[in-house]
Amino acid sequence: MSKELKIGIAGLGTVGQGVVNMIRQNRSSIATRAGRLIRITSVSAQSRGKDRACDISDFLWEDSPVDLAQNPEIDVYVELIGGSEGVALESVRKALANGKDVVTANKAMLAHHGQELAELADEMNCCVRFEAAVAGGIPVVKSLTESLAGNTIDRILGVMNGTCNYILTRMEHERLSYQAVFEEAEKLGYLEADPTLDVGGIDAGHKLALLSSIAFGTKVDFDNMEIEGIERISTGDIEQAKDMGFRIKLLGISKFTEYGLEQRTQPCLVPAKSPLGQIEEATNLVVLEGDFIGAIYLQGPGAGSGPTASSVLSDLIELARGIRIPMFGQKADTLKLANPCKSAVEVPYYLRFLLKDEPGVLAQIAKSLGNVGISINRMRQYDHQTKEAPVIIVTHKTNRKNLNLALDEIRSSDVSLEDPFAIRIEGIK
Amino acid sequence: MSKELKIGIAGLGTVGQGVVNMIRQNRSSIATRAGRLIRITSVSAQSRGKDRACDISDFLWEDSPVDLAQNPEIDVYVELIGGSEGVALESVRKALANGKDVVTANKAMLAHHGQELAELADEMNCCVRFEAAVAGGIPVVKSLTESLAGNTIDRILGVMNGTCNYILTRMEHERLSYQAVFEEAEKLGYLEADPTLDVGGIDAGHKLALLSSIAFGTKVDFDNMEIEGIERISTGDIEQAKDMGFRIKLLGISKFTEYGLEQRTQPCLVPAKSPLGQIEEATNLVVLEGDFIGAIYLQGPGAGSGPTASSVLSDLIELARGIRIPMFGQKADTLKLANPCKSAVEVPYYLRFLLKDEPGVLAQIAKSLGNVGISINRMRQYDHQTKEAPVIIVTHKTNRKNLNLALDEIRSSDVSLEDPFAIRIEGIK
Repeated sequence: MSKELKIGIAGLGTVGQGVVNMIRQNRSSIATRAGRLIRITSVSAQSRGKDRACDISDFLWEDSPVDLAQNPEIDVYVELIGGSEGVALESVRKALANGKDVVTANKAMLAHHGQELAELADEMNCCVRFEAAVAGGIPVVKSLTESLAGNTIDRILGVMNGTCNYILTRMEHERLSYQAVFEEAEKLGYLEADPTLDVGGIDAGHKLALLSSIAFGTKVDFDNMEIEGIERISTGDIEQAKDMGFRIKLLGISKFTEYGLEQRTQPCLVPAKSPLGQIEEATNLVVLEGDFIGAIYLQGPGAGSGPTASSVLSDLIELARGIRIPMFGQKADTLKLANPCKSAVEVPYYLRFLLKDEPGVLAQIAKSLGNVGISINRMRQYDHQTKEAPVIIVTHKTNRKNLNLALDEIRSSDVSLEDPFAIRIEGIK
Repeated sequence: MSKELKIGIAGLGTVGQGVVNMIRQNRSSIATRAGRLIRITSVSAQSRGKDRACDISDFLWEDSPVDLAQNPEIDVYVELIGGSEGVALESVRKALANGKDVVTANKAMLAHHGQELAELADEMNCCVRFEAAVAGGIPVVKSLTESLAGNTIDRILGVMNGTCNYILTRMEHERLSYQAVFEEAEKLGYLEADPTLDVGGIDAGHKLALLSSIAFGTKVDFDNMEIEGIERISTGDIEQAKDMGFRIKLLGISKFTEYGLEQRTQPCLVPAKSPLGQIEEATNLVVLEGDFIGAIYLQGPGAGSGPTASSVLSDLIELARGIRIPMFGQKADTLKLANPCKSAVEVPYYLRFLLKDEPGVLAQIAKSLGNVGISINRMRQYDHQTKEAPVIIVTHKTNRKNLNLALDEIRSSDVSLEDPFAIRIEGIK
């Protein structure tokens, strides 16, 4: 058998521990499949003596990931530290500059620095693999980069943040407010140190940006993505949606339109019976649509020690097998600058208002919408005891630009008592 | 850019035409991703002048696929003829013997000759790739061979024959008999030349056997698979199942148990709300379960020109990129002989009887079941005008061996008016 593939792992959180355990537990079958042994030589993490769910006594310890990344012993540097800047980025740059391949789970870093790292990797004849950065254990990166590589991709959409989906499904099933579920999740340790990355839609956006690059052959463009989180969703919204046969999901959607690349991560109403509508808890689902394939649906655990480790091992076994593919599936200098566009596609919207309970108010709302060509499909005004009337309107298909004009007018009028809230309705032909 | 990858295609049915069109239509993006041009130099099919949905005028014509397979010009021989023996097998053997890589969609050939071809490929340092042989456009072969390669796979299960699923869903939605839907499908051209391959569960079994080999590191063992088709399913069965919250699907299931490798392709009742339960029409769904990944669900078009061509291109682009992996993910001489076992896992069963309408008959049935330790969960005897009583029994978990003993006793008794019919119930913990 060929000489072993020696790896250094920086970061021994849940994912790092999962990787250590997987390599140890399935050592033999991994070697049979990879064609050679994969051996961890060194590790680095913040706290050496910390109690972990894995045994690291066989490995050399490096205090500094940046030093580990340059360690002449290792062939592959595995970055599982996280964070878009700082030591993760510095160590990955060092690894590539020293001719080492990199395996990472760091979507934030790649969303901001992916093009730079792809160019450096090509220059140094190195590989950067990141299956674990998107949708946990689901092989979506490989499916786009390899399985669907013969297609022209039409669209990518998915539920790619398990925390948001968990919160939304808890709100629905338990009829709890967003705030109540958020606090509960915090107590249970389900949230990241900085939870706004999750609930603000940013984490899902990072992942979507990477998939867009592979799918459309464009340089990673996270900055031009429209992002909106789930913080404004109310139990009322969820119930309204349910009444109408929908569920609310944080969807990442990327599409190459005639106007340019449209990328958005936003809460959306989706038909309850559709595959996306049925995703519960922390499960992820990504839909890939292309000209010859039609559509494939990839569903599974979007996070967690085992599933994410499975994806890290997918990349390591690929490198052990001598498989070398450019980071985004094609040479970095062939990736085109994306011409970003916002919300070109017309869809119906769900609108929530809190209005003064006075004569003429509903007419005023309908007029503001009508003035920009938005017609109303459904409308409900709810029972209310106070002088504040909750009103839900579902529009026919319209574009976001016109909607924004109408909402601006309503927002600045004296009849609107809170900021109007709009959610796209996806999945309606 | 490196020199082009030259391919010869044998077989210009719907899949072959799809491959020609895909290579032509997406030529440029394919070349950018593959790192070189993929060029069809020669083709071979049964009828040169036939009217096809693709233009083959640019290509050289070979009358014989066996000659095409040895054509010194080509790097890769693409076999899209089909059939487990005959010219498909002969041409693939010739291609490998002449040092050419092979891409095929031929599950029947591989289910019967996979080990021989894997050994020949290894000996000749050639690759045999077959993504298109299993579940159409869904990247299940790659997911098992590469994405989940770090896992110990627990189980594979799936709906992998679109024809069967189409028939069963038509029977359910239109309340038509099996025979009526079968004839309708035949008229519409949905059935293969030999439809028993589909409705008899054999085609699904071929596919399952290939996945088992990759998943469990065993030599392909189609002969020891338990196979049962859908021909005996009645509209009554479908309605009964629905009443109980189930749907009937032809499932392929493969599991490595303590007793050996259990492979079966049979109609099963699955919970209607489960992912497998919701598969409609010709869609396929494969579930892969492993120790670290948990479970992933891959769903999409299981057949058709575009989707299957997409998988053929996945393999071609892989070869163009210089990716060389053994056929079943590990060297052929490391694959172990499977120790086959039958239906080791205990599950509940749905049983259908037609019994004499006489006193004591139900007691006799219950006694036959009870004698082998099978307890009854539910039982229904239906209204009937004649002396023939349709009876449905749902058992608690039991093993097939005991069930067969009981059914043999019932079958040979004088109270059973037709062969008892048993369907496994899957998905009950």
